[in-house]
Amino acid sequence: MKSLPLAKVYQLLEPGPVVLVTTARNGRANVMTQSWHMMIEFEPPQVACVVSNANYSFAALSATGECVIAIPARKLATTAVAIGNSSGRDLDKFATLKLTKLPAAHVKPPLIAECFANLECQVIDRRLINKYNLFILEVLKAWIDPTQRSPKTIHHRGYGTFVVDGQTIKLKSRMR
Amino acid sequence: MKSLPLAKVYQLLEPGPVVLVTTARNGRANVMTQSWHMMIEFEPPQVACVVSNANYSFAALSATGECVIAIPARKLATTAVAIGNSSGRDLDKFATLKLTKLPAAHVKPPLIAECFANLECQVIDRRLINKYNLFILEVLKAWIDPTQRSPKTIHHRGYGTFVVDGQTIKLKSRMR
Repeated sequence: MKSLPLAKVYQLLEPGPVVLVTTARNGRANVMTQSWHMMIEFEPPQVACVVSNANYSFAALSATGECVIAIPARKLATTAVAIGNSSGRDLDKFATLKLTKLPAAHVKPPLIAECFANLECQVIDRRLINKYNLFILEVLKAWIDPTQRSPKTIHHRGYGTFVVDGQTIKLKSRMR
Repeated sequence: MKSLPLAKVYQLLEPGPVVLVTTARNGRANVMTQSWHMMIEFEPPQVACVVSNANYSFAALSATGECVIAIPARKLATTAVAIGNSSGRDLDKFATLKLTKLPAAHVKPPLIAECFANLECQVIDRRLINKYNLFILEVLKAWIDPTQRSPKTIHHRGYGTFVVDGQTIKLKSRMR
C-alpha cells in the first residue's frame, strides 16, 4: 500500500450517479448538477445529499425545504455537465438547455421529463446543514419513465472524468 | 412519467461502490460490506456513511469511533458478498475469507491488503447516529495499491444485482 494525498480521496471513492436537483422559489425554478447523495433508509425512502452554500440552489432549498432529484441517463451527460457549468443566478437553465418541466404532485420544484426517474423530496432534518451543507430528505413520491429501459448512469470521478455504468451481474447476496 | 412504489426507490438511486468497513474492539477485528456512503467534503476529506444498528459492526464503530473503508475491485465481488452474508458475531471473517490484515497508521481497525484503496477514518460527528444510523467520518490517511491499475468497482442495485463500472468518458466540466 502506498500513501495517497488526502486531497485526492474524493476521486477514489466513486459517487453515485450524477443527478439533477430542481428547486423553486418565488415562482422561478432552477436546476443544479450534483453527485454527493446517498440513500439512508429503505422505507420511507430517505436520502442524504450535499448542496454547497456556494451553489445558487442552496438558498432555495434551505428556504423552501423542497427539491426534486431527477436522474439522467447517459444520453443527457453533456446537458448535465452544461447545467453544472452554469448558474441559475445568470440564466434560466431549463429554457437554455431545452429541458421540459413537468408539475410534481407534492412539491413546487418541477420534474424533468427527459430524466428516467424523478424523486419528489422534502427536507426532514436540518441539523447538519450549517456545518456540512448536508440535507436529510424524505422521498414523498417517485416517478419513472417506462420508455427508458435499463438506463445507464454516469458517475463523476472529478475534473470531467465520468464512469459509465457497465454490465450488470447477479451474485447470491442476502443483502436487501 | 409513471408512479413507482416508494419501497423501490433505493433500487433506483444507484449507490457508490460496494466497500468493506473494518472495525476493531477489544483486540478483535471485524469487517462488514456496505454501500451507503458518500463524500461530503473535499479537504479535509469527510465521508458520511450508514451503518445499521442491526449490524454487529455498529457497536464497535460507535464505541471506538474508528473504522477503515476498504474499496474492493470487481475481482473481490464474491468475497464482498460473502462478507455481507455473514456476521462477525459468529465468525472471524478475515480468516474464513482469507483477507490479509495490514496495520493502519492512525486507527486500530486494519487495512485490507487485497483492496485497491484503504481510508483510515475517525467519527467526527455523532448527531445523526441515533435517528438515522448515520456517521460523519473524517479520513485521516489514505492508501492505494499501485499494482491495481484502473480498478472497476461494483454497485449494489438490491437483492444481488450489481452494476460493474464500464467505460470512462471525458466531458468539459468545470466541476471539481
